[in-house]
Amino acid sequence: MLTLASDFGSPYPAAMRGVIHEMTEDATLVDITHDLPRQDVRTAAFWLKELLPWFPRAVHCCVVDPGVGTDRHAVVVLADGHALVGPDNGLLAPVARCLGTDPEWYRITEIGPASSTFHGRDVFAPWAARVHEAGIGAVPDMPDLRPLHEPVDLQFPTPEVSSTHAAGEVLVIDDFGNLITNIPGDYLAERMGDPVTVNGKAVPTGRAYAAVSPEQRLVTVGSHGNVELAVNQGRGDEAFDLGVGESVLIE
Amino acid sequence: MLTLASDFGSPYPAAMRGVIHEMTEDATLVDITHDLPRQDVRTAAFWLKELLPWFPRAVHCCVVDPGVGTDRHAVVVLADGHALVGPDNGLLAPVARCLGTDPEWYRITEIGPASSTFHGRDVFAPWAARVHEAGIGAVPDMPDLRPLHEPVDLQFPTPEVSSTHAAGEVLVIDDFGNLITNIPGDYLAERMGDPVTVNGKAVPTGRAYAAVSPEQRLVTVGSHGNVELAVNQGRGDEAFDLGVGESVLIE
Amino acid sequence: MLTLASDFGSPYPAAMRGVIHEMTEDATLVDITHDLPRQDVRTAAFWLKELLPWFPRAVHCCVVDPGVGTDRHAVVVLADGHALVGPDNGLLAPVARCLGTDPEWYRITEIGPASSTFHGRDVFAPWAARVHEAGIGAVPDMPDLRPLHEPVDLQFPTPEVSSTHAAGEVLVIDDFGNLITNIPGDYLAERMGDPVTVNGKAVPTGRAYAAVSPEQRLVTVGSHGNVELAVNQGRGDEAFDLGVGESVLIE
Repeated sequence: MLTLASDFGSPYPAAMRGVIHEMTEDATLVDITHDLPRQDVRTAAFWLKELLPWFPRAVHCCVVDPGVGTDRHAVVVLADGHALVGPDNGLLAPVARCLGTDPEWYRITEIGPASSTFHGRDVFAPWAARVHEAGIGAVPDMPDLRPLHEPVDLQFPTPEVSSTHAAGEVLVIDDFGNLITNIPGDYLAERMGDPVTVNGKAVPTGRAYAAVSPEQRLVTVGSHGNVELAVNQGRGDEAFDLGVGESVLIE
Repeated sequence: MLTLASDFGSPYPAAMRGVIHEMTEDATLVDITHDLPRQDVRTAAFWLKELLPWFPRAVHCCVVDPGVGTDRHAVVVLADGHALVGPDNGLLAPVARCLGTDPEWYRITEIGPASSTFHGRDVFAPWAARVHEAGIGAVPDMPDLRPLHEPVDLQFPTPEVSSTHAAGEVLVIDDFGNLITNIPGDYLAERMGDPVTVNGKAVPTGRAYAAVSPEQRLVTVGSHGNVELAVNQGRGDEAFDLGVGESVLIE
Repeated sequence: MLTLASDFGSPYPAAMRGVIHEMTEDATLVDITHDLPRQDVRTAAFWLKELLPWFPRAVHCCVVDPGVGTDRHAVVVLADGHALVGPDNGLLAPVARCLGTDPEWYRITEIGPASSTFHGRDVFAPWAARVHEAGIGAVPDMPDLRPLHEPVDLQFPTPEVSSTHAAGEVLVIDDFGNLITNIPGDYLAERMGDPVTVNGKAVPTGRAYAAVSPEQRLVTVGSHGNVELAVNQGRGDEAFDLGVGESVLIE
């Protein structure tokens, strides 16, 4: 199985699908999404970490690549039997750590003939197909790969959690407008059902969005396991007036 | 074969795809759409009824679920050899009736460990995969399912049709801006080519959008078999200034 | 393998997928895109020409069809072992020429029962499935097909290129806002790295978007091989203030 994720929208991903089908014929090819926020490596890294672990072992071709055509490396990463193929710009670091404790990084030493503007089609898709055809276990012995000892890292900020409060920030806003924070959902477990304050204002807590009336704000635990600021059947980003990176203090 | 439909947009459906591939490996998985209008059960029920009958017998996992995490039931419905998996909120009632005359409803008695906010990933996708692996015919004997005798119903309003007029309403507006009414297309059959009045104003009728000039209004029969108010190469919703649920009188 | 491309957005393409799976069961079905600009045959023809040649030989069902329900022909085109199925409105002419030197055109003489508004579902998807099941090589002998000697043509304008300047126009604006011109990338090859003037104003050239600072304009060669006017991590259409069909003079 191969998966594809990118910020290419439409229609460019079709060329990647074509290249992969041309090289693998019978492979199952699954789109993760091609609507990752444009050239936003950090948000894309969050979503890859949330989504890829649900898949069986596969070759995952992931491209959010503002440095396409520059000298940033192209990499193949092995993590717990999965293979990740993409640019070395931090995009793959969180998901690699999440999949396996000791990911192995390889840089691609020979990208072959390629445009300077669409390595998704010209480098990453063909390499994903090559890894798929060789088998993930064969990656350490593939030609044109060298161990990469210092891949570009990307870390999400650590929240400060005590018995009385949790101080974190908004990591990502999803398509529904839910504000996904970096505060672990466990913090809310013993307070569930009681109101808390968010940046000084009282907000109810609830396990389900429908724990409050439509259009009402709530603090819940999202499907990613983190504290989420939301509005039942509405947009949390507007109601809480917070953006990515802004501070969230829950007391 | 399994199909997936939801209002999740991007990227959440990827987690559902991952769960299903993890549990079924070789199954063919087809996306219906993930752009159903957010938390609009009625419109989603219309589209499922229009779309799923075109498929061969399959397990259809359908999630538009404003009550996620509350005590609404999760169900499996058998209809003419298809299986529908989703929430018991009316979403599946029209398509179940459309597929088979006597659908059998089962509620899921044990949902297992699940988040409170993403049953698409944690309940419906795994159950769709379980039904697929067991085989649709085995559903009546599956553990953790009980017959459900009074599922939540959802009916579309019945139009009033006589030899001189048809009084109905706008059911759904599609992506093109076409106004899909509940008036059966048969009403228009003998009038095709002659002008009619729509809410008192004369509008031409035509079998094809291109029966009128670009940007001109027309009354036609849509691909769903209902009377549709449209604009050739334009948006009917703007030209007719009508919204969902508003009355349409054709004379 | 079958592929699907259209301007139908969501959710109509699901009915086409259903029809094809109903008729072919085990076929691999790949979506190219369903977000081609609405009823814009010329832009869609450009993208089909760019995308389909990356695929292995397949049946490609392509529908951008403002004349649906009129007397325009429905066609099957053979080109280098690929089969294209769609309306005869110019959409398939550039990709057919691009795939093979001597494409063979057939018109469908019998479309069977069909709505007047959704030939994607009622004519083109079933015919794509029929061609897939018969095998592409069997097309010349299929019933209900007749050679079509004068298909509707569609040509992209030819640029004027000399040693001192290139005069062309904007062919297409992609989702990123990049302005794709009809000027061949070769024109830029020997000037790469030196500034040029675009419609009289100096703009740097570069192989990669990141050759200039974020938000800065550049002239590059896009993945389609043509000269592209772009902004690093921004939108070229806004920065250059040019639309489709407008003149581009590079000196």
